[in-house]
Amino acid sequence: MMKLFYAPGTCSLASHIALEEVGVPYEACRVDFSRAEQTKPDYLAVNPKGRVPALATERGTLTETPAILAFIAQSFPEARLAPLDDPFEFARLQSFLSYLCSTVHVAHAHARRGARWADDPAAHEAMKAKVPQNMADCFALVEASMFAGPFVMGGTYTIADPYLFTIAGWLEADGVDPGQFPKILDHRNRMAERPAVARVLAQVRA
Amino acid sequence: MMKLFYAPGTCSLASHIALEEVGVPYEACRVDFSRAEQTKPDYLAVNPKGRVPALATERGTLTETPAILAFIAQSFPEARLAPLDDPFEFARLQSFLSYLCSTVHVAHAHARRGARWADDPAAHEAMKAKVPQNMADCFALVEASMFAGPFVMGGTYTIADPYLFTIAGWLEADGVDPGQFPKILDHRNRMAERPAVARVLAQVRA
Ligand SMILES: N[C@@H](CCC(=O)N[C@@H](CS)C(=O)NCC(=O)O)C(=O)O
Ligand SMILES: N[C@@H](CCC(=O)N[C@@H](CS)C(=O)NCC(=O)O)C(=O)O
Repeated sequence: MMKLFYAPGTCSLASHIALEEVGVPYEACRVDFSRAEQTKPDYLAVNPKGRVPALATERGTLTETPAILAFIAQSFPEARLAPLDDPFEFARLQSFLSYLCSTVHVAHAHARRGARWADDPAAHEAMKAKVPQNMADCFALVEASMFAGPFVMGGTYTIADPYLFTIAGWLEADGVDPGQFPKILDHRNRMAERPAVARVLAQVRA
Repeated sequence: MMKLFYAPGTCSLASHIALEEVGVPYEACRVDFSRAEQTKPDYLAVNPKGRVPALATERGTLTETPAILAFIAQSFPEARLAPLDDPFEFARLQSFLSYLCSTVHVAHAHARRGARWADDPAAHEAMKAKVPQNMADCFALVEASMFAGPFVMGGTYTIADPYLFTIAGWLEADGVDPGQFPKILDHRNRMAERPAVARVLAQVRA
């Protein structure tokens, strides 16, 4: 059985929802950030990067949200979570995942993880101050030119949807009013009503 | 014919090499960063993010290096640039691409693009100061636990190789001695000797 290493309130939620949507049995293993478990030898043996998510499979452990999401979609084609037979449409989907991972998630991380990129506490404050603007700029671009609707890629639910839902869930904490982005807010509300999403949220918050 | 929008010295080199390796005809369109062309309306119509690379195809324009690289591999399966028939091996490859994109490239960007994440010039200096350590930490992890050898994924050349080559080419400018990473340095030297790589470098430097 696959094991998903996750922490509440983090990007691991996207992979967690995708697993629940395909309906495969998996074990969800919580990594306790309040005890800094992600930095301890036991967890570093799972993922030497010291981050979640990590997905342990029979063949080895995978990290990085876009890679895990595409793996879930390709491993369970009957769940139809990605346009697997069309390299161009698959690339459009992957482009969206990569933008969330490399730009939007990174913009968010500057609010609390500034110590990754500078040692000076004044620099951490300067980074934090710019997070609301950067997150709003990213979501304005998603709303205006990436989000097809009603789902991210158009008429079909894909692995991009739980990933957008996850990161859009951080907007208020990042000082951004999601009301500025009506399509994304509506998507977030509809996502929260999906049974798979509700089951994961209940499990994560328990 | 596909068009690759590129700029010398940037991450677009990875996609450029991949196109050259498959041997498909393409047009290379230089975006002149010295004139800030990436911020002008003409280019924003190509890529509203104002970044390179962008790959214009018959069906639309793709952005994000990991997505473009996987698109090239999937569109030209005869070039065997990715393990397309094995979702786990494909995910291992994608995990590597995603790490370079979301962590290593981002670590590098803090040297010159600090204005993305803070307005205060002192914060830019603080970010710059940490780049050598962050890049060295990232490459230490790649050398120790990701690079299989002789190519990134093992015995077979894949789209991960031009991407690693591209980012490893930034080490000296980022204040890191690549001699600390013998496997990566040897890979960089072997990559530079590949005819496709030499052709692209000649074109980009022209
Ligand atoms: N590029 C990775 C980023 C993973 C990541 O940064 N995870 C955060 C949670 S959202 C984490 O584990 N942080 C723990 C820490 O920094 O100590 C991905 O997309 O999966
Ligand atoms: N996540 C994107 C990042 C693209 C990116 O940041 N490109 C840089 C060059 S390495 C760029 O175009 N910078 C122009 C600017 O910041 O104005 C990718 O991997 O393709």
